[in-house]
Amino acid sequence: MKNERFEKGWKKFVEIHGPVAKATVNSLQDISPELGRFVTEFAFGNIYSRPGLNLKTRQLLTIASLATLGTAPLQLKSHIKGALNVGCTKQEIVETLLQMAIYAGFPKSMNAMYAAKEVFKEKAKRRASK
Amino acid sequence: MKNERFEKGWKKFVEIHGPVAKATVNSLQDISPELGRFVTEFAFGNIYSRPGLNLKTRQLLTIASLATLGTAPLQLKSHIKGALNVGCTKQEIVETLLQMAIYAGFPKSMNAMYAAKEVFKEKAKRRASK
Amino acid sequence: MKNERFEKGWKKFVEIHGPVAKATVNSLQDISPELGRFVTEFAFGNIYSRPGLNLKTRQLLTIASLATLGTAPLQLKSHIKGALNVGCTKQEIVETLLQMAIYAGFPKSMNAMYAAKEVFKEKAKRRASK
Amino acid sequence: MKNERFEKGWKKFVEIHGPVAKATVNSLQDISPELGRFVTEFAFGNIYSRPGLNLKTRQLLTIASLATLGTAPLQLKSHIKGALNVGCTKQEIVETLLQMAIYAGFPKSMNAMYAAKEVFKEKAKRRASK
Amino acid sequence: MKNERFEKGWKKFVEIHGPVAKATVNSLQDISPELGRFVTEFAFGNIYSRPGLNLKTRQLLTIASLATLGTAPLQLKSHIKGALNVGCTKQEIVETLLQMAIYAGFPKSMNAMYAAKEVFKEKAKRRASK
Amino acid sequence: MKNERFEKGWKKFVEIHGPVAKATVNSLQDISPELGRFVTEFAFGNIYSRPGLNLKTRQLLTIASLATLGTAPLQLKSHIKGALNVGCTKQEIVETLLQMAIYAGFPKSMNAMYAAKEVFKEKAKRRASK
Repeated sequence: MKNERFEKGWKKFVEIHGPVAKATVNSLQDISPELGRFVTEFAFGNIYSRPGLNLKTRQLLTIASLATLGTAPLQLKSHIKGALNVGCTKQEIVETLLQMAIYAGFPKSMNAMYAAKEVFKEKAKRRASK
Repeated sequence: MKNERFEKGWKKFVEIHGPVAKATVNSLQDISPELGRFVTEFAFGNIYSRPGLNLKTRQLLTIASLATLGTAPLQLKSHIKGALNVGCTKQEIVETLLQMAIYAGFPKSMNAMYAAKEVFKEKAKRRASK
Repeated sequence: MKNERFEKGWKKFVEIHGPVAKATVNSLQDISPELGRFVTEFAFGNIYSRPGLNLKTRQLLTIASLATLGTAPLQLKSHIKGALNVGCTKQEIVETLLQMAIYAGFPKSMNAMYAAKEVFKEKAKRRASK
Repeated sequence: MKNERFEKGWKKFVEIHGPVAKATVNSLQDISPELGRFVTEFAFGNIYSRPGLNLKTRQLLTIASLATLGTAPLQLKSHIKGALNVGCTKQEIVETLLQMAIYAGFPKSMNAMYAAKEVFKEKAKRRASK
Repeated sequence: MKNERFEKGWKKFVEIHGPVAKATVNSLQDISPELGRFVTEFAFGNIYSRPGLNLKTRQLLTIASLATLGTAPLQLKSHIKGALNVGCTKQEIVETLLQMAIYAGFPKSMNAMYAAKEVFKEKAKRRASK
Repeated sequence: MKNERFEKGWKKFVEIHGPVAKATVNSLQDISPELGRFVTEFAFGNIYSRPGLNLKTRQLLTIASLATLGTAPLQLKSHIKGALNVGCTKQEIVETLLQMAIYAGFPKSMNAMYAAKEVFKEKAKRRASK
């Protein structure tokens, strides 16, 4: 079932999310392996692999969208980690979430900030324990 | 009632949206002039004036958020124009809206594309008529 | 098919919305008459007829909810008219919509203001033509 | 306060949700018993009791709607259980949630899959412990 | 750029939507041809082509999702037409939209009904003019 | 950085939310202190301090909006506490959330009720332990 688009997507998925890529696909394995495949092929193979926007900008856009949805804290945290992985600074992430207060309202902006806070803390803890 | 924050916001509002800034504030004048003032002071004076992200990135983030909401076509078109004004390319705008298919679903991505299409057409028409 | 709950709901529906009650039920007649009946029985017979909150407060709450949804401009306008009918002032309606900027974001607050502006204008026109 | 519509609704509620029906109504008892009554009367007495769609289709439609909302994981799990109770297969449920990726975006589809995964696991555990 | 998945998707797209398939892809041609391709490949090639649910059920699920979103009236109308094309009855469509009142609220259910009403009218007019 | 608007906002923030005001601002301190400042200045300094609606009505409107969003249970609980603080009765809060079933659907109304139930329980516990 593996194909070129999947391979390209998988490389991009791992480039952005590191070991979380495998964990995400695994988490869907016994319920809907197709969904893991479609995420890899479509989101990462078709979209994130496109030229026209660099990965840093793409991650900030995703964070803006997920903060606006407000219903996917798991994916928001995951993409905040991904943003750090591809070189976004904490300040850029925080600025993105702050700006969302205008469009998505203060509660969604605040909850997204709490998600970022957790991610930054976990990262600091991992770094400290090395 | 004018203050420093309002003045700073107004300059930024005009820098991004050109004559649409005045039209927006005017459109609220006889229903809620405060809302026009708060948009100017908070959105443009407090947020868009901040360092940490350049205006081009901020406009793309706004477009991502408005496409995800899906309920504010007027403001989406307005910010697509603003994105062009501050130097975003059509390609960057289209890439942003395309990426939203992953997070907000295809219908919202498609409707945002139709909004962009209208903005690009209006701009081409204005240019042609000069 | 008429019953006590329907009759109670219908009276409340007309008390709040005047001739719009009949127009609403009629607009559903040839597609889903049940929906018109359920709106009358449940929304107006079961909920709006309850004690515990006066009609003015109930209308403002509804306007807050519809402005937050952002997807039902028709019903928002309808309930702004209803709010005026049961004695809410224009100022109370505008304050309600302004406050929504905090929770639902500025675009939804602005669009709700435009809806209110239209309702107020139509009302002024009707009054002027008498 | 019991009436014919309530009785019809209650039978349908129990037919779909089994012991969860009583648990749901009980969970609302000390905060808003009316809400439990309205759910029973309106959702189950007025809607689910209607002819025109069989219960299996109705449950899949509800799952599609709750996955699209993305804000009610408790009710989503509850209706996934209900779908199994009225004879939907796991495959039909998973197909329904997969299709939602198109309309509600991948994050909502993924989170709905995680909800289904938990329900299927709990069910397997209960069966194993018998 | 055409591939097997695109061909399979295109056949399914036309099977469900008839001439609207071409119109949809065309409407995106000069703004984002990729989006038209992704809709064809992913939505119709990957999802609607799957076994596990028949096309009639899939269309009702889509209608349920779009009515719940409430922000894509264009696509809702399009899929109501598609539902009729694959053999859903008007009654099944109306029942689906009615049930959404429980989960998405009455305004979204009502607006979806108005969309269905327009589709049914247009269809009757076309038939009458033949 | 403190200013008149901040001071006015802070007083209103504490009047409504008591010690939760400080806890909220503190929770944002190490991720985005600006957001805490903007909430204080804009939400409480600019909006809640306005005449035109009393604080009790404003709290009920906020609860209606947050129940309709459905994505901010933390803030919903916080504002239910705030509503009690400024003199809303439990009955008024429950009526508000019940009415939301019409506009936001039953699942959001139910989840908001569960939030209210928790707040009322915590309050009863605190009172009992004095």
